Amino acid sequence: MTASAARPRLLTGDRPTGPLHLGHLVGSLDTRVALQDVHECFIIVADLHTLTTRPKKPELAQLPRFVRDVVLDQLAVGLDPAKVTFYLQSGVPAVYDLAILFQMLVPKARLEQVKSLHSMARAAALPEGAMTMGLLGYPVLQAADILMARATVVPVGLDNEEHITIARECATVFNELYGEVFPLTEATISRWPALPGVAEGIGGSGAKMSKSLGNAVYLSDDVETVARKLRTLTYDDADRRAPSGAALLVFARAFLGDQEAAQMGSELVSGALSVGAAHDAIIAAVERRLAPIRERRREFADQGGLLEEIIVDGTIRAREVANRTLQNAREAMGLEGLWAGLVAATEARAKARKHPYANL
Amino acid sequence: MTASAARPRLLTGDRPTGPLHLGHLVGSLDTRVALQDVHECFIIVADLHTLTTRPKKPELAQLPRFVRDVVLDQLAVGLDPAKVTFYLQSGVPAVYDLAILFQMLVPKARLEQVKSLHSMARAAALPEGAMTMGLLGYPVLQAADILMARATVVPVGLDNEEHITIARECATVFNELYGEVFPLTEATISRWPALPGVAEGIGGSGAKMSKSLGNAVYLSDDVETVARKLRTLTYDDADRRAPSGAALLVFARAFLGDQEAAQMGSELVSGALSVGAAHDAIIAAVERRLAPIRERRREFADQGGLLEEIIVDGTIRAREVANRTLQNAREAMGLEGLWAGLVAATEARAKARKHPYANL
Repeated sequence: MTASAARPRLLTGDRPTGPLHLGHLVGSLDTRVALQDVHECFIIVADLHTLTTRPKKPELAQLPRFVRDVVLDQLAVGLDPAKVTFYLQSGVPAVYDLAILFQMLVPKARLEQVKSLHSMARAAALPEGAMTMGLLGYPVLQAADILMARATVVPVGLDNEEHITIARECATVFNELYGEVFPLTEATISRWPALPGVAEGIGGSGAKMSKSLGNAVYLSDDVETVARKLRTLTYDDADRRAPSGAALLVFARAFLGDQEAAQMGSELVSGALSVGAAHDAIIAAVERRLAPIRERRREFADQGGLLEEIIVDGTIRAREVANRTLQNAREAMGLEGLWAGLVAATEARAKARKHPYANL
Repeated sequence: MTASAARPRLLTGDRPTGPLHLGHLVGSLDTRVALQDVHECFIIVADLHTLTTRPKKPELAQLPRFVRDVVLDQLAVGLDPAKVTFYLQSGVPAVYDLAILFQMLVPKARLEQVKSLHSMARAAALPEGAMTMGLLGYPVLQAADILMARATVVPVGLDNEEHITIARECATVFNELYGEVFPLTEATISRWPALPGVAEGIGGSGAKMSKSLGNAVYLSDDVETVARKLRTLTYDDADRRAPSGAALLVFARAFLGDQEAAQMGSELVSGALSVGAAHDAIIAAVERRLAPIRERRREFADQGGLLEEIIVDGTIRAREVANRTLQNAREAMGLEGLWAGLVAATEARAKARKHPYANL
C-alpha cells in the first residue's frame, strides 16, 4: 500500500449487480483512474446495499460472480491495487455499528425527502407501501461507509448527491453532540451526463444505459458484440430533439471528443457522412478504449486468486480503518469508556483474588 | 454457567435509564426470578435503546452508573448470576449486524403502525417530525436482541407486545427467504397492571410509576424514604373511580394480596380502618419485600468488582451466542460463503506461491 495518509481520502464504488459497462467507464471509472494518483482511494463493493432492493436468495446467489466482475472490471480499466483499497462492504463489521449509531441521529422525515430512494423503489418495482426500513436507511448506511473511511471526497452521479448531504449531516450532528470525530464530506459530481443505452433490451432508444434495462455495452463484451450493439445507436429526428441529442452523438462526444462530435453532427445533417460511417468511427474509438482494458483483464484473470487476494487484503485493511473510526466514535459517545470501566473493575477483582493482601 | 441448553431461552431486560422501582418489581422482576429456574435467561442492559430517545452526551454520561444500578437491583431481587446471563447490549457487535440485515426485510409502513413508538416519542417530548430513524427501528433492534439469543420466550408489558410480533415477523420473513434459522418468539404478558406512582414528582396521583415522572419508590430507597413516599398514596373519591381503583388499594393488592386488599377496601369505606393505618399495613408489607433485597444488595456491592465481573462475563457469553447466530444467518443468506470463497482462492494462491510446482 503506497498511498500516503496525507492525501485526501476518497470513497466510491458500486453495488455488485452485474458487470460494468461503457456508462460506468465515462461516468465514473475514468474519474477514479485519474483520481487514484492524488487521493487515497477506498473502492467499496457494496453488497449490503444490494439487499435494499434485491434481498432474495437467487439474487444473493449471484453475488460471488458479480463481486468478482465489478472488481475485475475496475482493475482492467486501470485502477491500481497498489494505490486503491478494494473492499467488500459486508466484510467490514464496524460499518453496521456506525450505521445503527447514525440512525439515532437522523430524522425519519429527512430520509423520506430523499428523492433517489423513491426512484430506487420504482426501479426495483416495489409498490410504494413496500419500501423497507433498509431502503429508507440506505443513505445512512452509505454515510457509515463514507465516514468509517473518513473520506472527504466522494465522486457521485447527480442523483446521489443528496446521499452525500446526509453523510455530512450525520457527521455534523454527531460532532455537535459528542465532539469532533468525523470530517465533512464533499460530493464531486461527474461532468458526464448518463450515457444512453443501445437500442437493445427493454429500455428503448434514449434510456440511460443500465444493466437492468439490458441496453448496456459491457467492458467485458467481445469485439463483435461491441460492434453489433453500437450499430444500433440511432440518429433519427425524434432522437435529435432529446435533451442530450441523438444517442449516436452522445457516444461521439464521449469517445471522440466535443469537436469531432460537432463535425460528425454537421456531416450527418448535410449528408456528407452516412450513419453507417458514423457507427464505424464510434466503434473504432470505443475499441481504442476497450482493447487495452481487455488486455489488462486477461492479465489479472490469468493469475488465479489474484483478484480474490486484492479483495481480501483490501477488506482486511478497510476493517482496520473502520475499527479505528468506530472506536473513536464510541470513545466520543462514552460507550468505550463504559465498557472499559466494567473491564477495569473486573480485572482489579481478578488481581485481588490472585493477591489477596495486595491492598492491605 | 449451570443453565442447560435444553431449557427454553428467555430474553428480557431494561433500558439503563435509572435504578429500578416497585413497579418493576411487581411488573417484571418477580416474574424473572420465578422463570430463572425453568428457562435459560438472557437479561439485556439495553444501553443502545436509550439512544433512541436520549442520545445527548450528558444523558450518555449517566450510563456507567445506571448500567450498574439496573444489574445490582436485579441481583438484589434474587436473580442468580449462575443461572442468568446479564449483558450489555452495546458490547455485542453481532446485534448491530443482525439489526441491519433485518431492516432489509421490514416495511417502513409496518413500523409506522407500532403505537408504542409514538408514545415513546411523546414521553421523550420529541415533536412528531423529530422521530429518528433509530426510534422507528427500535423494534427491529429489539428483534435482533431477541433473535441473536434465539429466545422463544419474552416476558413484556402489554405496551411492548407488538415489538415481539415484529421479532416474529422478522424471523418468519428471514426463514422464508433464506431457510430456517430463527425460532418464532412468543410474548408472555405480565399479569400485573402498571403500579401507580406515589403523589410526588410531576406525574400526580394515578399516573404510572415511572423514573421519568419522579413518582417512583426505588428498590434502593432506604426505610425512611420508602415510608415517606408510601404515605402519599391516596384514597380519595376521584381516585377510587380510576380504572384500577385508588392507588392505595392497587398497592394493597400487589403487596398484601387480593383478599386482604378487598378487606382493606371495605374497612376504609366503612371507616373501620383509617387511611393512616392502611398506609402502615402497606409499608410493612413492602418492607417485608425490601428488607431481604437490601441485604442482598449490600452483599453484592461489598464485593468490589463482582457486579462488573458479572456484566463482563455475561457480555462475553452473549457475544459468543450472537456471533454463532450471526454466522448461521450469514451462511443462510450466502454472505458467509461469499467471503469464504474469496478467502479460499486467496489461500490457494498463497500456497501456490510457496510451492510453485505443486500443481504440475
